[in-house]
Amino acid sequence: MRPRQHPSYYIDGLRAGDRLVLSRAITLVESQLPADQTLAQAVLEGVLPHLPQTSVRVGITGVPGVGKSTFIEAFGKHLTGLGKQLAVLTIDPTSQRSGGSILGDKTRMETLSMDPLAYIRPSPAGDSLGGVAYRTRETMLLCEAAGFDLILIETVGVGQSETLVHGMVDFFLLLMLAGAGDELQGMKRGIMELADALAITKADGDNIPAANRARLEYQNALHLFPPTDTGWQPPVVSCSALNNTGIAELWTMIETHQTLMNEPAPDGSSAWLRHRQQQALDWFRSLLRQRIEQQFFARPDIANSLAHVEKQVVDGTLLPTLAVDQLMPRFR
Amino acid sequence: MRPRQHPSYYIDGLRAGDRLVLSRAITLVESQLPADQTLAQAVLEGVLPHLPQTSVRVGITGVPGVGKSTFIEAFGKHLTGLGKQLAVLTIDPTSQRSGGSILGDKTRMETLSMDPLAYIRPSPAGDSLGGVAYRTRETMLLCEAAGFDLILIETVGVGQSETLVHGMVDFFLLLMLAGAGDELQGMKRGIMELADALAITKADGDNIPAANRARLEYQNALHLFPPTDTGWQPPVVSCSALNNTGIAELWTMIETHQTLMNEPAPDGSSAWLRHRQQQALDWFRSLLRQRIEQQFFARPDIANSLAHVEKQVVDGTLLPTLAVDQLMPRFR
Repeated sequence: MRPRQHPSYYIDGLRAGDRLVLSRAITLVESQLPADQTLAQAVLEGVLPHLPQTSVRVGITGVPGVGKSTFIEAFGKHLTGLGKQLAVLTIDPTSQRSGGSILGDKTRMETLSMDPLAYIRPSPAGDSLGGVAYRTRETMLLCEAAGFDLILIETVGVGQSETLVHGMVDFFLLLMLAGAGDELQGMKRGIMELADALAITKADGDNIPAANRARLEYQNALHLFPPTDTGWQPPVVSCSALNNTGIAELWTMIETHQTLMNEPAPDGSSAWLRHRQQQALDWFRSLLRQRIEQQFFARPDIANSLAHVEKQVVDGTLLPTLAVDQLMPRFR
Repeated sequence: MRPRQHPSYYIDGLRAGDRLVLSRAITLVESQLPADQTLAQAVLEGVLPHLPQTSVRVGITGVPGVGKSTFIEAFGKHLTGLGKQLAVLTIDPTSQRSGGSILGDKTRMETLSMDPLAYIRPSPAGDSLGGVAYRTRETMLLCEAAGFDLILIETVGVGQSETLVHGMVDFFLLLMLAGAGDELQGMKRGIMELADALAITKADGDNIPAANRARLEYQNALHLFPPTDTGWQPPVVSCSALNNTGIAELWTMIETHQTLMNEPAPDGSSAWLRHRQQQALDWFRSLLRQRIEQQFFARPDIANSLAHVEKQVVDGTLLPTLAVDQLMPRFR
């Protein structure tokens, strides 16, 4: 067996913080080849006992044009300036179509990509949304194994990937533009209530008054919405990557949230721990459901009749309950 | 075969608008007995071709104390006053615990329950949330088959049943109290973005100024949120069941929404039709997933190892991906 076919090559390399090994391990995790998948699982199993227990995972989302890369560049520089080891993972559900996300992301964050404390890795969209989440989660673990204790996951706030990313981070930050209108048209309904904080971007130059107005409006609006389970009331801030304003404050806010979440409960647990445990359980259940369904829909008898049955359901000539009875091979 | 064991007893009775038969048909649909279920499916299949194509389904939700029953009583009286045949279905996820919802609901809407144009039916919570939705959908179809072309489905806005109800109605109305605070604590996060309209209740007496203030605040807030897919911007109104104000306006608003949704597209379809078709497809897929999972988790080998595997996942000693591999009998 050549070295790169053995889990220890990756496990040792990751624990030593070797970035070349990290990149190769991520490529392994993303590979569709059965042999690579087996190896990837062995690598993940090997690093699991050594994962840091103090990492911070932040999801960042916003519609195209909100300035995500510019924001992450400024935010990332601030974090590495504090000595943080920072990994940035970007999920772009459109990259399959454009085909250019991998080079694109690196050039989008030019300064940060040359920072020795930062590691930037785009996630290709893959063939399913579930697949994106699957690989991004494991990529995140690999980064943590390699010593990156702060993970930023960037996603575009227009589809379903945000809900998945929300399920794998400690803090979910929504970037917004001042002067809603057009921006809101492209935004997914329901996403605002996932956010742990809103940041109005591009609060610089002539745009400062509008950004401040937007900040106040959203602040008033969010007070009318239910707080999160932990009682956290999502704050609204404004910031400028250009002038580097509001960036440090955002990190302080995330630290405050982390402190709150880590307050020990009488039983020794914390909201942070319960949240991570629930996320692991949700991840397991959703993977299991996915696998069960894959097996089911791969059956030739099911695959052949599904489209026909679904057409009748849509046409209103077959009740969904009866459609299920027709499709299920072992009814009652 | 006795008459009540034959589908035609129910089908003919429903088509004749016989309320006793309707009540019995609903009881049949709610029954867990296999023989009843088979009969119920035959009844539903029999009425399917005769369902009215013009019914309006409205979901109404709000946390306990918002005055749902009082509102529905006033709203319902207004609707029967317009000559509408109205069915009110209430889902109470707590009724299993309290055990008293069936009598409770009827007495809660005393005037409406004696109205010859109205039919009130509480849905017992059943053993699963999916079950609630399952039976409520079918109950709705039975009511429509019996000539009720306007269906109100009431649910408590604190759990997950609202999301399910949202998936079976044309219009989703959220009732809110003026002076948020306590009320918001109990409300499920994300529910506001499901709403097609917000109504501030109890806008009477000393409470009028507060209700008007709340109305304006929520109106401003909702403008900052993405509109629905159809471009509908959820309005905020205030109303009083006591003074009977704002009630007629709410119905006019729902009619406006219906008109907008029914505007024919160039291909002859409408947003209303596409919405109903999508709901039918979603219902089918969710029932199918449920059934597939039921079969899977009923396997003794799975049932035995699931809890053990989940514990390891929660403890962080087993990766969810590996946990799935361990659990699945036919891995790759």
